[in-house]
Order: sequence, then C-alpha cells, then structure tokens
Amino acid sequence: MLEALADIGQDRGTGGYTRDAWSPADLELRAWFGQEAERRGLDLTADRNGNMWAWWGDPDAEPGVVTGSHLDSVRQGGAFDGPLGVASAFAAIDGLRARGVTPARPLGVVCFTDEEGARFGVPCIGSRLLTGVLAPDRARGLRDDEGDTMADVLRRAGRDPEVLGRDEKTLARVKVFVELHVEQGRALVDRDAAVGVGSAIWPHGRWRFDFRGRADHAGTTRLADRDDPMLPFAHAVLTARVAAERHGVLATFGKVRVSPGNANAIPGQVSAWLDARGAGERAVRELVSELALGSGAAVSEESWTPVVDFDVPLRDRIAALLGGVPILPTGAGHDAGILSAAGVPSAMLFVRNPTGVSHSPAEHAEPVDCRAGVDALTSVMEALCR
Amino acid sequence: MLEALADIGQDRGTGGYTRDAWSPADLELRAWFGQEAERRGLDLTADRNGNMWAWWGDPDAEPGVVTGSHLDSVRQGGAFDGPLGVASAFAAIDGLRARGVTPARPLGVVCFTDEEGARFGVPCIGSRLLTGVLAPDRARGLRDDEGDTMADVLRRAGRDPEVLGRDEKTLARVKVFVELHVEQGRALVDRDAAVGVGSAIWPHGRWRFDFRGRADHAGTTRLADRDDPMLPFAHAVLTARVAAERHGVLATFGKVRVSPGNANAIPGQVSAWLDARGAGERAVRELVSELALGSGAAVSEESWTPVVDFDVPLRDRIAALLGGVPILPTGAGHDAGILSAAGVPSAMLFVRNPTGVSHSPAEHAEPVDCRAGVDALTSVMEALCR
Repeated sequence: MLEALADIGQDRGTGGYTRDAWSPADLELRAWFGQEAERRGLDLTADRNGNMWAWWGDPDAEPGVVTGSHLDSVRQGGAFDGPLGVASAFAAIDGLRARGVTPARPLGVVCFTDEEGARFGVPCIGSRLLTGVLAPDRARGLRDDEGDTMADVLRRAGRDPEVLGRDEKTLARVKVFVELHVEQGRALVDRDAAVGVGSAIWPHGRWRFDFRGRADHAGTTRLADRDDPMLPFAHAVLTARVAAERHGVLATFGKVRVSPGNANAIPGQVSAWLDARGAGERAVRELVSELALGSGAAVSEESWTPVVDFDVPLRDRIAALLGGVPILPTGAGHDAGILSAAGVPSAMLFVRNPTGVSHSPAEHAEPVDCRAGVDALTSVMEALCR
Repeated sequence: MLEALADIGQDRGTGGYTRDAWSPADLELRAWFGQEAERRGLDLTADRNGNMWAWWGDPDAEPGVVTGSHLDSVRQGGAFDGPLGVASAFAAIDGLRARGVTPARPLGVVCFTDEEGARFGVPCIGSRLLTGVLAPDRARGLRDDEGDTMADVLRRAGRDPEVLGRDEKTLARVKVFVELHVEQGRALVDRDAAVGVGSAIWPHGRWRFDFRGRADHAGTTRLADRDDPMLPFAHAVLTARVAAERHGVLATFGKVRVSPGNANAIPGQVSAWLDARGAGERAVRELVSELALGSGAAVSEESWTPVVDFDVPLRDRIAALLGGVPILPTGAGHDAGILSAAGVPSAMLFVRNPTGVSHSPAEHAEPVDCRAGVDALTSVMEALCR
C-alpha cells in the first residue's frame, strides 16, 4: 500500500521525503487517505482540527476502537515514520474482514495532522488541538519559514482556522487508541523481535535560543570590536553535548537560522532550536536551565510534553496477546502520547527498524516485519472490538 | 539622490536592504541608473556581463575616466554600500558641469553587477567576468539558494548568458577608474576626516566547509551512536576565532546551512562559509589550512583575491589634490580592486561612517560627509580628465 505513496514529496537526489503539513504533498496524501477509506466503505470525516477519521460503524452510537498515525514527515525524512501506521490500520481492517470478524463496536482509522511539527515548529499539532493542550490562538499565530501563519495556511487549504480547538464530540468517539509506528532505535534489533509494545514516552521539549549580536562587515571589523552571536551559539552546541552526557539525557541542535546569513557579514542574530529529552523530567529541565543561563541567549519554550506512561493494563494485555513481545519506552513524541495524557487509553506497537535510524531516508522496515506488524495490529483490534 | 532609492528592497521591520543581483529590487535600481543617465544626456550601454555604463563623450574615440560602484547589497545591508558611489558619480558629473568644466577626455559612470555576491556566493561577479578572472562556464553554473543557476537567472532577466566573459572592448574604454565608497571601519572617525584615499585591499577569500554526519532522530539516538556534524562545526567556529587572533587576521562564519534542518532531527550535514582576510596573504592561507585540517570538513575555495595595492602615483596625486587626506588600507573587496589587479589604474575614495558598522542597517554617512565626498570626487575627476 505504501508503494502508492513512494513518489509523494520525495527528493530524488537524496531519497528523503519532505511532506510539510498542508503542502501539496500533504494534500495528495490526504486524498489518498480518502480513497483508501472509500474503497473499504468507511465513513470519512475531517474534524475541526483537520485530523481525518474513517469509521466502520457509527462512533456516535458507541465509542470505538481507533488505530492510525500521521502522513506528514520531517524534512528529508523516511518513508515509514507515520505512513506505516496509517497503511497498517487500513490493512488491519482488511485483515479483520478476511478473518470474518464482525466488530461488536465501531472501528476507526485516523490520520493526525502535522505530527512532526516541521512546518510550524510545534509537533503533534492535530492531537494537541483536539485535546486542548495547544491553545487555538497560539496555533493560529504560529508561523512557518515563509512567515505565513497557520491561519493563512489553513485558509489557503480551504479550511476554517476559527473552528480550531478542543473537540469534545470527536474525543467522545474514541474509546481506545492504538498507534503502530516504525521503531526509531535499535531495541527490537537488539532483542531480535519484529514487534514490540510501548511502555512510555520520555518527557521532551523544544526550546528556541536567540543569540543576539551586531551585524557588521566580515572584512573590516576588528576581532576586538565584534559582537558575533555565532561564537556563543557554537559554545552552546558543545556545552549541550557535555551537559547531556552528564545528565544522562539527549540534547540536539538540529535547526539553525543565521541572520542575515551573508558569507561576508558578521551575523546580527543566530537562532537555534534545542530538542531535549530523557527518562527523567528533572534531568531534562536541569539541562535546559543550565544551557539557558550559560549561553546568554534569550530562550523561549516552544513545546513541553511531560512523561507519558501508557495505560498499563492495556499494554500488558497487548503484550500477552502477542505472545510476550518486548515492552519498550521511546524518546520520540507521538499522537498516542498526547491522547494518553488527555485520558484516552492508548497503546503503541513498534515495528523493527534494521538500521535503527529515523528521521532520515535510511529509516527502514523489512516487508516481513511490516506484515508481522499488521498481523499484530489486526489481533489487537480484534481483541479490543469484542 | 539616494532618497529615490530609499524604499527599494527595504525590510520595513529591520530597516535593512536586500538587493540580490537580478532580483526585482536590483532591476528597479538598474532602471533608476538608466533614468539618471538619460536625465544628464549620457550614453547608456550594458556590457556583455551586465555592468551598466553611462558615457559623457565617446570612449571608443579615446579611453575615458570612469567612476561609479554597485547597486546590489548584502542581505539586510545598509543604504550606502554601493549606491553612495553611484549617486556620487552622477553628482560629480553635475558638479563638473556646474564648474563649467569641458572634459578633455570621455567621462563614464559605471554600475557593476553583483558586487556583494549575496546571490551566488562569489563577490564582484561583474568585474571578475569583465576582466576574465572568473571563467564564464563557472559563472553560468553558480547556483543561488533556490537552486537556480546564474544562466537561468540571466535568461529570466532577458539577458544572454552565452556572451559572458572577458570583454576587451569595454576594458579598452577605461583609462582610469575611481570608486567612491562609504568607509567600512572607523579609521576616518578616529582621524577626524570626512574623506580618505585607499592604499590597498587586503587579500581575502571565501571557503565552503562541508561537515558531513548522519541524519537521525533527536529523541531516540543515543549520544554514543551519533554522528552529529553540528559538533565539529561548532568546534571550527571557536577554533577560527582563536586562530584568527594568533595569526592577526580576520575570520568569520556568517552563513550556515543545516540539512535537513529539523528541530527534532540530528543533521546530516552542516555547510558553513568561512570569510578570511588580513594584511598578509601567508597568514590568511595558514589560518585556512589549519582550520581545514583540524575541522575534518570537506573544504572548497569559492573565491580568492590576492592583495591589491592601488596605483601609487595615482593614489598620491589624489591625496595631495585633496589636501593630504588620510591614506588607508581596507579589508573589504571592491570592483576597484578587481580592475586594479587586471592592470587598470584604479583608486578609491572613502567617506566617513560614524558608526564604523557595515553590511548592516547601522551603516551610515552624514549628509555633510556625503557632500564632502562628492566635492572630492568632482575635483579628482576634473584633474583626471584634463
């Protein structure tokens, strides 16, 4: 099923995928979602926040069992992060029908909007808006790299930005949510298992560091007269690595904006985004405080997600059902984490990634493992919809 | 006269100017050049490389005295770097006519193309092509940030990229070239002088450093498993500063490109441009070699300009004519340096910049100093065209 998407948003040179929310690539992926729903006779709806739902049965009569993931990607990402969960959800519906299952409650397939946050800097925008943890005013005002606000972008995509916000009606339809996702590390490879179950999502956040200096000519300004923000930025990058090791957490500067960005000018400002995560909330917080104080930068928190422990009975039931597959925490944020934190019983299934690499074209899942993932998801859905 | 240009390419938020070569702003500035030439009854021509010339008299009968500068800017630059020299050139023509001077040889005003190199990464493209130090094939293949080649950009601007290259006919028209420019440091402020004369342009160059790593997920990749190119880049930034101090030269990283540039992904590549200059060629070369070796990056030289000593008799004659104004070297490259290196007797006049800041909206010249510059240029042109 993923083959139909192989060309959408792909950079032929690198093999990487760039599927920003509401970009032409994303709209094409949304159209594909609609076709797959229609082909299976599912009822398609988009909620107020642009998340797409395809229902088998009537979730307003009784809340349903939902599976799915997202279709957007990071820039130059891989083919599996997101789409594998959506395609596996449709395949699980096919699997249930092939097994002759008549579900005792509605089943839904969901595609969440803008999970990666590549466009507006905040991840899981669709599920955060749905559950009300992201304020609609803030969301509408978020800007992409072109300077367009989310409100502008939604309007151009034919959507009404005024209806964004917590959506009780949609939430009430979801009794339980299961998200299947390609693994983003090597835990399943190390344990020689095709499929695993999620235990928790590490606390994680994103902070913008603005290093301010004075733009000047690179050829005529004496070293002593310079106020070059590239220097404290470079220092912060190296400090972050050492501090992350000390605190036993992860810290990454993956996005940098240099202004004005002339090769022959000292920059006036360097903005850099810190991603920090770890098993312990306190250690992550301490790392960020240390860096913020030491760097001299103006620091603003763009997102923060506390630790999410997935529903323990649900997790144990799934692991037992699948014959005792490994139970793993993850450092990556997911819509399942947002729903879980909002009180929706949620679980995750991970599918082995032989490279362990993620957010890169090197991300991979073997067909045999993808099939094992679909089989597992089908069994889980069958059990949950009894 | 500069007031007519005050809005072109200006960012109202910062006050900075962005006037990339062949952008709509640049085309508007070129149209202004044509109008100013026409208003004075000068003969307007564009040479094969897109430089614009406005002649008073026939330079094919006898080579002429030329003054001028450029109209493009760095990104978020100031209002004076370039345009002050072009406007002063037209004002000097007016001054000569007001003084009743009948020049004994042709006088020309020139606007060189793409002096800053903001778009294609190579500075002084117009004068380098004119004098043959930049190969036309290389120029045509240079790419801007959008991935467009210079050949594409020229075609879209209605110009023929096939005619680029050393232009003997145009060069033969130039007997001597004088470029007036806002000072890019504080030497004239320190010496309490409105105007100075250039002695030399420091050797300078631009190098691209490609730090290669492996793109991966910021939340799931253990520190020990990372190959994050941001770390050696940060190290190179700090090393460059220390090495520049030791060698007594200038080194700047002012432009950085992080790929893919996701806040939640370890980058696969960081590309950064080093600008290095100094009084001594050997010290600059040593700095770059040290950094290239120590950084582990793949380094390519994008431009290199050896030291340029302006014509000494011409320089001394101008300084004496202006009553013994200061004689200063500069670390900034200029079209006058390219012409001088190509054997055209050339000189520069500098106008005081009270902030000393350049390539920034803070760049400035007081009206009284601008008038002193025009008076000085008028006197120089009068003496040279006798």
